[in-house]
Amino acid sequence: MEVLQKTPLCRFVDACLRGCGQVMFQNNALTGFLFFVGIFYNSWQLGVCAVLGTAASTLTAMALGADKGLIKNGLFGFNGTLAGIALPFYFVFSPDLLIYVVLNAALTTVIMSALANFLGKWGMPALTAPFVLATWILMFCASKFGFLQAGSLLSISIPDPHATVEIGSLSVMTFMDGITKGIGEVMFEDSMVTGIIFIIAIAVNSRISALFAIFGSLIGLVTALVMQSPEAPLRLGLYGYNSVLCAIAMGGLFYYLNWKTFLYATFCMIIGSIAQASISVLLAPIGMPSLTWPFVIVTWMFMFASHDFEHIAAVPAAVLGTPEHNLKHP
Amino acid sequence: MEVLQKTPLCRFVDACLRGCGQVMFQNNALTGFLFFVGIFYNSWQLGVCAVLGTAASTLTAMALGADKGLIKNGLFGFNGTLAGIALPFYFVFSPDLLIYVVLNAALTTVIMSALANFLGKWGMPALTAPFVLATWILMFCASKFGFLQAGSLLSISIPDPHATVEIGSLSVMTFMDGITKGIGEVMFEDSMVTGIIFIIAIAVNSRISALFAIFGSLIGLVTALVMQSPEAPLRLGLYGYNSVLCAIAMGGLFYYLNWKTFLYATFCMIIGSIAQASISVLLAPIGMPSLTWPFVIVTWMFMFASHDFEHIAAVPAAVLGTPEHNLKHP
Amino acid sequence: MEVLQKTPLCRFVDACLRGCGQVMFQNNALTGFLFFVGIFYNSWQLGVCAVLGTAASTLTAMALGADKGLIKNGLFGFNGTLAGIALPFYFVFSPDLLIYVVLNAALTTVIMSALANFLGKWGMPALTAPFVLATWILMFCASKFGFLQAGSLLSISIPDPHATVEIGSLSVMTFMDGITKGIGEVMFEDSMVTGIIFIIAIAVNSRISALFAIFGSLIGLVTALVMQSPEAPLRLGLYGYNSVLCAIAMGGLFYYLNWKTFLYATFCMIIGSIAQASISVLLAPIGMPSLTWPFVIVTWMFMFASHDFEHIAAVPAAVLGTPEHNLKHP
Repeated sequence: MEVLQKTPLCRFVDACLRGCGQVMFQNNALTGFLFFVGIFYNSWQLGVCAVLGTAASTLTAMALGADKGLIKNGLFGFNGTLAGIALPFYFVFSPDLLIYVVLNAALTTVIMSALANFLGKWGMPALTAPFVLATWILMFCASKFGFLQAGSLLSISIPDPHATVEIGSLSVMTFMDGITKGIGEVMFEDSMVTGIIFIIAIAVNSRISALFAIFGSLIGLVTALVMQSPEAPLRLGLYGYNSVLCAIAMGGLFYYLNWKTFLYATFCMIIGSIAQASISVLLAPIGMPSLTWPFVIVTWMFMFASHDFEHIAAVPAAVLGTPEHNLKHP
Repeated sequence: MEVLQKTPLCRFVDACLRGCGQVMFQNNALTGFLFFVGIFYNSWQLGVCAVLGTAASTLTAMALGADKGLIKNGLFGFNGTLAGIALPFYFVFSPDLLIYVVLNAALTTVIMSALANFLGKWGMPALTAPFVLATWILMFCASKFGFLQAGSLLSISIPDPHATVEIGSLSVMTFMDGITKGIGEVMFEDSMVTGIIFIIAIAVNSRISALFAIFGSLIGLVTALVMQSPEAPLRLGLYGYNSVLCAIAMGGLFYYLNWKTFLYATFCMIIGSIAQASISVLLAPIGMPSLTWPFVIVTWMFMFASHDFEHIAAVPAAVLGTPEHNLKHP
Repeated sequence: MEVLQKTPLCRFVDACLRGCGQVMFQNNALTGFLFFVGIFYNSWQLGVCAVLGTAASTLTAMALGADKGLIKNGLFGFNGTLAGIALPFYFVFSPDLLIYVVLNAALTTVIMSALANFLGKWGMPALTAPFVLATWILMFCASKFGFLQAGSLLSISIPDPHATVEIGSLSVMTFMDGITKGIGEVMFEDSMVTGIIFIIAIAVNSRISALFAIFGSLIGLVTALVMQSPEAPLRLGLYGYNSVLCAIAMGGLFYYLNWKTFLYATFCMIIGSIAQASISVLLAPIGMPSLTWPFVIVTWMFMFASHDFEHIAAVPAAVLGTPEHNLKHP
C-alpha cells in the first residue's frame, strides 16, 4: 500500500481506511476498505454515512491539531465510522441527516481526545466509548426535536422483571444467522453476507482476530441461549456483537495469547453478552439502544483489572501489534 | 472594595459575593452583588435561599478547613448559591425547606472538595458538578418522602422518540425573551429583567464574558430552533442556559481567545444545547430536571480533549484571569 | 486462630471468613464466622449462597494471580459474599441459580481489581462497588432472559414526585426492628435476631465499630423519619443499612476519631440515608434495587473530599487498623 502514502490526499484516504478497520482493532487499510464494501453491500445509505463519518472525524482531528501518529493509524476514524452509521440506522434517512452525521463524527473526535487524556493515566484505550457517548448525546433528544424522525427500531418499553419470556424454536439458522450477523451488527449490519465479508476483512490483517470474532459471536449467542433468551434477538446477532469486540480485544491483541488469557477473554465475552441485555433494559424506558456500551464497560473492567493479575499477561502498549505479531514477540 | 477585607465578617461577605459571581466564573464581589439583586428582583424566596446557600457552603468549607485561598475567591460559594435556589424553584417554599437548603449547600462543599481532589490529577475544574450531584441526591427522593412538596415544574413523562413535535409560531419575542431568560435560567430566573441585570453584572467584571453569555444564549436557542424544538422552551431560555455557561468558560476564559478557540467554543455551545434535550429525556421517567449537567459534561469533554489539540491553546491554571487579562498576557 | 494458617485449605477458609467479616470492614475470621451464623439463622439458602459467593470470588482471585496479601485479608471475599446473597434474595432460588452466584462472585473479583487500579491513584478503597456493579450487570437483564425468575421484591414503579406519602403510625417496634434490621439488611437479612448477631460479631473485633453500626442505623432511620418516610421501610431497616456502612467506615476506621470527624461521619450517614431514597427512585422505572450504591457513592464523596480538609484527619492507608488501634496510634 505504498501508493497510499504518496500525497496528502492519499494519506488522508489511508487514514480513513485504517480508521474503518480500527472499528474492529485492525490497523489495515485493506481491512477498512473491505469493511466499507460490506457496509455498502447491505445499504448504500449506511455506506455513505460510514464514509462521511470516518472522513469527518478524521478531518476534525486534523483541524484541531491532534497527534499525527494517531490520525495516521486511524484512531480518530473508527468512532466516526460508527457515529456515521448509527444515525441512519435508527433515524429516517434524509440529506439533512448528513449534517448531523458530520456533527456526531466531529464530536467523537473531541471525546476521543478527552478520554485519551483521562484514561492515559492508566494506559487504557478509549475503545468505542467516544462513539457511544457522542451518539447518545445526539440521539436521546429525539422526542424533543422535530429534526430527528425515529425509525422503527426505536421503541419505548417498560422492562418488567416478572415478564414471561417466550423462547420460540431454535434451528440451525439461529446459529448461522446469529454468528455472522453478530459480527455484522458491530457496524449495524443486519446481513449474513456482510458478516462474512467482515470476517474475511479481518482475516486479511489477522487470522487469529478473525477466529476470535467468530468465537466471540458464538459465545455471545450461547450465553444468551443458556440464559433463555427469545430466539429472535439471538438470530439477529444482538447478543453477539459486543462479545465479538470483547473477543478481538481480549483475544491475543491486548494480551499474550495463552490458555489463561484465553479463559479470561472468554469470561469477558460471557459478561459482554449479559451486559448487552442489562444496558438495554436500563435504557428501555426512554427507548434508546445500548450501542456498544456493554463492550466498552466490560472490556474496561477486565483491562483495568488485569494490571494486578499476575497470571494475565498484557502486551505493553509500546509493542502492541496483531495477535500474530504479539505471539512472535513475547 | 478594600473595605471588604477589613474584618473577618467583611471577608466572609466578600467571599460570599464572589461565590455568587463565580456561578458565571466572575471572581468579583460587585458582580455577585448584582446577581443577588437580579435574583431578589425576580423572587424574594429564591433570593433568600441563594444567600443562605452561598453562606452555608462557604461556612461549611471554613468549618472543615478547606483551602483559604479557594474560599476567599468564592470557589466554595457558587455551588451553594445554585443549590440554594434550586430547591424553592422545584419545591413548595416553606421555612422547613431552608434547613434542606443548608444541607444541600453543605453537601456541595464536600463534593466540591472531592471533585477537586479527583479532577486535580488532570488540572480540571469541578464546574457546577457539585451543585448538580448534591441537588440530585437531595431531590430525586421527593416521591419517597412527605417532607418535599413538589411544585408544578416537576412532572413525569415518557419521552417517546416517535412523538410528533409541534413547533408553534416564532416571533421576535421568542428571541428577546429566549436570549435574556437563557442567561437568567443559569440561576433559575424566568425573568427578562433579571437576565439583563445578569448581563450587566458580568460586564462589570468582563465585557468579553458578557458578550459570550449573550452569544451562548443565542447559539443555544438557534441550535434548538434548527433542531425544530417547540417554541415554548426556546422562549423560556431552556436551551440557552447550558450554552451560556459553555460560552463563558470556553470563550476566552480557559482558552486564549482566537478564531480557532472561538470555533471550538461555539461547537461546545451547540453540543451543550443538544445535551440539554438529551439529559432531560434521560431523567424524564422519574420527572427530574437536568440542572446544569449538560454544561458540566460537555465542557469537561471539550476541556479534557484540548490537552492534546495543538491548535487549541488553554490558559495555564496558574495565570487564569478574565478574558481581557488573558488576552493581555498571552 | 493460629490453626487457620496451618495448611493451604485452612488459609483459604481463613481468607473466606475474613472476607465475610470485611463486608462490614472487620478483618477478623471470628467476625466472619458469626456473620455466616447470622445469615444461616435467617435463611439456609442465603447462607449457602453467601458461602459459595465468598469462596468463588476468593478462588477467582487466586486463579488470576491477585495480590496474596489482599486475598489473605479477605479483600477479594466480601464482594463475593454480597454478590452471593443478593441473587437468591431477589430471584427464586434454584440449583441453577448457584451457577449464577459463582459467575457474579467471580465478576466482583475482576471489578475489585479494576477499581483498585483505578482508585489507587488517589489511595481510595473500592468499598462494595464491585458487588453492586457486578450484581446490577447480572440482574438488570432479568426481563430479557427466562433463566432469572424474579421474586416478589422486584417490582416496577413510576416514582411520581407529586405522590402523596402516607406515613402510618410509629411505635417502639419501628425503632427496635428498624435499628437491628438496618444492620441485618447490609447483608439482605430481614431479621432482628440476625441483626443482633451481626452487632455481636462486629463487637468481637471492634466495640467502637459495633457502636457506630448501631448509631448509623439509628441516624439512617431518624433521617428518613424526619423526611417523613412511610413507616414500613423504616421498620424494615431500608434507610438504615447504607448509613450503617457509612458509619463503620467513617467512624474511627478511615479517620481518627474525634468530635470533628464524628460530625463529618454523621453528615455522611444522613446523606447516605437520603441517597438510598434517591437511587431507589432512579432505578424504579426498571424495577431494580439500589443495593449498597448509596453507601458507595456517598462515602467516596466524603473520603475523596477530606483529602483537602485540614480539620478531618484521615488514617494513612499503611497503618489502618480497627478504630481502637487507630486511637492508640495517632
